[in-house]
Amino acid sequence: MERRKFLKGAAIAGTGAALAAPAIAQGGKTITIVSTWPRDFPGLGLSAQRLAERINVVSGGSLRTEYFAAGERVGAFDVFDEVASGNSQAYIGAEYYFGGKHPGFNYFTSVPFGMTTPEWNAWIKFAGGQELWDELAGEFGLKTLTCGGTGAQAGGWFNKEILSPDDLNGLKMRIPGLAGAVMTKLGVSTVSLPGGQIYENLVSGAIEATEWVGPYNDYFMKFYEAAKYYYTAGMHEPGGGLGFGMNKSWWESLSDYEQAVITACCNEEMAAQIEEASAKNGEYLGKLVNEHGVEVRAFNEEVWDAFGSAAEEVFEETRDHSPLAAKINDAYQASLREIGGWRAIAEIEFTKQRNRILDIG
Amino acid sequence: MERRKFLKGAAIAGTGAALAAPAIAQGGKTITIVSTWPRDFPGLGLSAQRLAERINVVSGGSLRTEYFAAGERVGAFDVFDEVASGNSQAYIGAEYYFGGKHPGFNYFTSVPFGMTTPEWNAWIKFAGGQELWDELAGEFGLKTLTCGGTGAQAGGWFNKEILSPDDLNGLKMRIPGLAGAVMTKLGVSTVSLPGGQIYENLVSGAIEATEWVGPYNDYFMKFYEAAKYYYTAGMHEPGGGLGFGMNKSWWESLSDYEQAVITACCNEEMAAQIEEASAKNGEYLGKLVNEHGVEVRAFNEEVWDAFGSAAEEVFEETRDHSPLAAKINDAYQASLREIGGWRAIAEIEFTKQRNRILDIG
Repeated sequence: MERRKFLKGAAIAGTGAALAAPAIAQGGKTITIVSTWPRDFPGLGLSAQRLAERINVVSGGSLRTEYFAAGERVGAFDVFDEVASGNSQAYIGAEYYFGGKHPGFNYFTSVPFGMTTPEWNAWIKFAGGQELWDELAGEFGLKTLTCGGTGAQAGGWFNKEILSPDDLNGLKMRIPGLAGAVMTKLGVSTVSLPGGQIYENLVSGAIEATEWVGPYNDYFMKFYEAAKYYYTAGMHEPGGGLGFGMNKSWWESLSDYEQAVITACCNEEMAAQIEEASAKNGEYLGKLVNEHGVEVRAFNEEVWDAFGSAAEEVFEETRDHSPLAAKINDAYQASLREIGGWRAIAEIEFTKQRNRILDIG
Repeated sequence: MERRKFLKGAAIAGTGAALAAPAIAQGGKTITIVSTWPRDFPGLGLSAQRLAERINVVSGGSLRTEYFAAGERVGAFDVFDEVASGNSQAYIGAEYYFGGKHPGFNYFTSVPFGMTTPEWNAWIKFAGGQELWDELAGEFGLKTLTCGGTGAQAGGWFNKEILSPDDLNGLKMRIPGLAGAVMTKLGVSTVSLPGGQIYENLVSGAIEATEWVGPYNDYFMKFYEAAKYYYTAGMHEPGGGLGFGMNKSWWESLSDYEQAVITACCNEEMAAQIEEASAKNGEYLGKLVNEHGVEVRAFNEEVWDAFGSAAEEVFEETRDHSPLAAKINDAYQASLREIGGWRAIAEIEFTKQRNRILDIG
């Protein structure tokens, strides 16, 4: 009892916006949110805390959030069971952390050679993605909305250069999701660790490489102390998003108005998290290079092709898991080609021409 | 009086969500919204109507919107003065329609060789863009938030092939904003027309070419009846967004809670409008080609280079307008290079490799 009381106090202090909400707050409904991110974690953690505050404010205090960072109420990877059981109302985290429950969850974070964030959002909201997510999450008593995303992630941190696929063989790397399975096929020994545990494993030598997000998020992780080669574009998490996973029975007990407020705030934060990182990635890449001597590298086409062949095998194996896994994979791959096809000849072609003429990149 | 009463009735029917709002709606504050889009206009118009409804719903009826499409209360290009004068509370439209008031407004829709939507959103929300928008709009008694966007627009519809810059000379084209100034330098006779008036001008021969948005929006405009060559990537509107322009005194009279609801709904719709078009562009490009015999083309590098040289002159002339125009241009160009630089070596490089390996585009 003492522990819970202490943590509750800490959570309210963390989402101070509740204090500013109108008087209606006194009769409000409480939403206990558990997160996979450490408290005040730059990028992902601060985004999750901002979302919790925003629900307080936009609901006029009629929905009162209590936010618990990783370890404050349950461990990072325990949030799924915490919410499915109804012990808390919602989690904020990456769905691919729960790929062990069902491989279909990977498609609702990001998969190798998959959709970029603009493509994935289009799929989720206007091309059938949310319906498949509802079907999958529903099997576990959950209803999940997207509430954040990282944009295309950096290829990652390595303690040596990767000049050919052979250089990956035997490497110990933190890389979750289906991308981990791709790396395994290339001889990498992969592990999934929550964000708060990567640094200690890298410094101790338990892992020799890791991916995380991008310059703004990665800067604060200090990975450069143990791995100085930073690969820019990567195959592993081209986009996609984070999940606001709610207990399904609780979600269905809400009014249309309450559901609309939560949905609007999740949609707003989905955009904001990526925008914030995009605004800062350039500046923080400069700091990594100039302040910490980080060496920026790009994978060559031989390495990209090896990733591609391995990914093809991984998707076939994922389809074999179950009819639902195959259904999600096939819908995802079809939408990727449909949505990505126009973008290739419009936004991507424009950007290529612009960058050539203005000498960007 | 009769006219106003009739239109008011029509507007309430158009935003039926007010009927579903909680009882609190009876005491709600009314927001009269005037728009630059015709009623029920696929894409842009339906997005604006959805936003008006969403403010009703997410505010629990405490903010009640009355939506007037172009011509229902004032003409498309008159919405700026209507709201600046305080006669209506808000407009939804493209800021570059008001480039005649100040050329700085162009940067708050989209400019040639400018930012794509993910880049522009990052600039607006996390790299100083909103502050510059506030300074500019504030000079006219307005406060404007982004509330929609199109993604990178198609190069446009032409009644002949454009094989070299010479083919543009003497052409009559609808193309607003600074892109119109770029085309003028290449000998094009340009005109700015609201969306509802383009078709009649194209069919009559008053114009021979036009840009609009992309396959999903363009399909319903029937431009293919008079111009069968459809250019994909274009230099003219690579991204950016639409504006929810409010009377500044009215905005400042709102509570923090009311401002938060409007901001959240605008941010949500900014994302949704682009996602909807992205989800449908591929399908509608197919319909244009297969149902209407549209010929898809891409500008060659000689044409792109001519656009680039002309754009450089246009930006210099825009800077010369005033200190504020120069300040906005310089901040915009710096952020484009900072934000676009990381994206070039991350998301754009990933997409290039993915599309090569999966044979997309």
